[in-house]
Amino acid sequence: MSPMTSATLRAAAPESAEDRLLADVSAHATNLPPSGIVELMNYGRTREGLIPLWVGEGDLPTPAFICEAAAGALHRGETFYTWQRGVPELRAAIARYMTRQYGVAETPERYFVCGSGMQAINIAFALTLSPGDEIIIPTPAWPNAAAAALTRGAKPVSVPFAYGPDGFSLDFQRIADAITPRTRAIFINTPANPTGFVASREALQTLLDLARARGIWIVADEIYGRFYYGPEGRAPSFHDIMAPDDRILFVQTFSKNWAMTGWRIGWIEAPPVLGPVIENLVQFFTSGVAPFMQRGAIAALDDGEPFVAEQIARARAGCDMVADPLIATGKVDLVKPHGAFYLFLSIPGQEDVRRLALRLVDEANIGLAPGTAFGPGGERFLRLCYARGEGQLREATARFVSWLERNV
Amino acid sequence: MSPMTSATLRAAAPESAEDRLLADVSAHATNLPPSGIVELMNYGRTREGLIPLWVGEGDLPTPAFICEAAAGALHRGETFYTWQRGVPELRAAIARYMTRQYGVAETPERYFVCGSGMQAINIAFALTLSPGDEIIIPTPAWPNAAAAALTRGAKPVSVPFAYGPDGFSLDFQRIADAITPRTRAIFINTPANPTGFVASREALQTLLDLARARGIWIVADEIYGRFYYGPEGRAPSFHDIMAPDDRILFVQTFSKNWAMTGWRIGWIEAPPVLGPVIENLVQFFTSGVAPFMQRGAIAALDDGEPFVAEQIARARAGCDMVADPLIATGKVDLVKPHGAFYLFLSIPGQEDVRRLALRLVDEANIGLAPGTAFGPGGERFLRLCYARGEGQLREATARFVSWLERNV
Repeated sequence: MSPMTSATLRAAAPESAEDRLLADVSAHATNLPPSGIVELMNYGRTREGLIPLWVGEGDLPTPAFICEAAAGALHRGETFYTWQRGVPELRAAIARYMTRQYGVAETPERYFVCGSGMQAINIAFALTLSPGDEIIIPTPAWPNAAAAALTRGAKPVSVPFAYGPDGFSLDFQRIADAITPRTRAIFINTPANPTGFVASREALQTLLDLARARGIWIVADEIYGRFYYGPEGRAPSFHDIMAPDDRILFVQTFSKNWAMTGWRIGWIEAPPVLGPVIENLVQFFTSGVAPFMQRGAIAALDDGEPFVAEQIARARAGCDMVADPLIATGKVDLVKPHGAFYLFLSIPGQEDVRRLALRLVDEANIGLAPGTAFGPGGERFLRLCYARGEGQLREATARFVSWLERNV
Repeated sequence: MSPMTSATLRAAAPESAEDRLLADVSAHATNLPPSGIVELMNYGRTREGLIPLWVGEGDLPTPAFICEAAAGALHRGETFYTWQRGVPELRAAIARYMTRQYGVAETPERYFVCGSGMQAINIAFALTLSPGDEIIIPTPAWPNAAAAALTRGAKPVSVPFAYGPDGFSLDFQRIADAITPRTRAIFINTPANPTGFVASREALQTLLDLARARGIWIVADEIYGRFYYGPEGRAPSFHDIMAPDDRILFVQTFSKNWAMTGWRIGWIEAPPVLGPVIENLVQFFTSGVAPFMQRGAIAALDDGEPFVAEQIARARAGCDMVADPLIATGKVDLVKPHGAFYLFLSIPGQEDVRRLALRLVDEANIGLAPGTAFGPGGERFLRLCYARGEGQLREATARFVSWLERNV
């Protein structure tokens, strides 16, 4: 597959019928950046024996008890249109889960089921961004948030993280300076993909104070909140410091905690007064989520704690298993992360990371994502997902170390 | 549930914390019209014994062979991220199906799997409409198309159907007159929800000629194409007259033919050159469709013909079963439809159809959708979905006839 950039998608001087057709497509669609991760996946997807560490996804399929709950509902005929806000039993299960994890009041009416965390972001952006509005996104960041803003005709404003010997940190002054009269929101992902950054409680308070003072929304992506390697059981959360009517929209997913990446189911948490608006947006985006999938999600929340605990322990061990040998080579720049399940590393002297990622497919049979996919500040990095089993991680690490010894 | 209008959603003078919060939401979201159908469903959803004829959904659950294909894939671990364009086997199955039904060339690269026909519409609109652009929609129409345009900051332009003794027909002059320099597309649903209108091959040719001459896109919603009660096996289609590079985007769904409404899976058909753009949009809207659902969809296409034939025969019989006794009362204005599976009827003297629909829930225990939900031209109508079994249809008809005798 050749690289698809907006330059190649939109021919400067349309000549063929295909070029003319493409020239008739909305610039909001053709100017979208292609996913630098999908490009790599498509490039290497069918390679024999390749170990894929490029996407934010583990190697475990969804646990059987979750699949069985969904399959049972399918066979019982739960195949009709359902509540646009999510089936009441799932909203109640989410509320119980959030109460257990975050000590918040059990209020099902704050939670709205939607068709992936990605759709939760689109709903949050539809709530906050009109065409021409701006949203601040600290980068490097998972690229889909910025792209979702672009699909709406809004403007994502990148504010690079500071980077030092301790890794990435938020630069509050640059964030404050980036706020303009068109700024409606700030997108905060913590623990963060791809950097492994985790905002402290103090950092969250600083952000909240800033958002309150400047009248902007916070879109909080805390989907890796439980993949946290500090002393506490989970990462600090806006739930720890917020008031109920703060302008915070949480986007959430079942993908990571419960190994349900392929399902496309998540939720958005918002003040209940937004319920009718969110219900409308769900209706007009995809018209709800399969009820049989929602039964699987209920099982995940109610009975999934042993699995989640195992996933987190596995990720913690996986981080050491990959990071320590790579650091020992002396050939990579890598700060061990505090949360999420990615290493974000650079190789001094190897600046063209898209080409580097393609080479690692061809020469080491491992799939990493190029940092260019994650916006300003990511240009010289590679992202490696370590949410896999010991066998694959040790083999992938050996291949990578060997490649480094040969080539760097 | 109280009616949610933009007026009530956006308080004129925000006073409470909730009002102020709502006032901070993008007007593109709060100004969305609430679904007049969802309002009714939420009103009557839990009524004992209510016969629901309000949504475009039959009473049959998804056939077991489709559920089994999906459940089997779930148990085999097909729970990971997958191709954003759809798994290749499903795209090939769609191509085979379209070749069988429409005699078109078997070209999998024209078909892109997405998370509902609703999402297919959003993708088609993202391809054609930038903020401020216009799309022409003949009305009465399924309201979600106009709403999807609004969520993008685009402007849906209603052009009412002509209405006469033979029912609804397209008014080509009014459509041509509605085209402005901002018009980018026209949305054509045939056979049509809610009117039962079916465009003839000649009408489609007139529309295509107009679109070609004025340089606008056609978004073709032919999801009811097989629910057709004329002498031919299916309704006329743009596929019968188009060239491969015509600016036509087809939106499709598995919902109706295969009784998969709750699943949220469909496809978009587009010139292959748009592939990378569509792949991006899928990625940034919901990031794909569950692979196990796609296995169910393959089973539907490959093995579903007996079920589809049974569904169509049942709808044809259901139409007569409901329409004939209603017409015989002499109290309704109703032209029997040529396609789809709705009656669109009015009751002379009963103009407030939202209230009328609420009364029919309370007084006849049947659920109809108010025509006000379908835009200009629908104000005095009710929509009734007859895609149900004989027992429920006869009972619902008896209740409706009895109500008419008592109240009109």
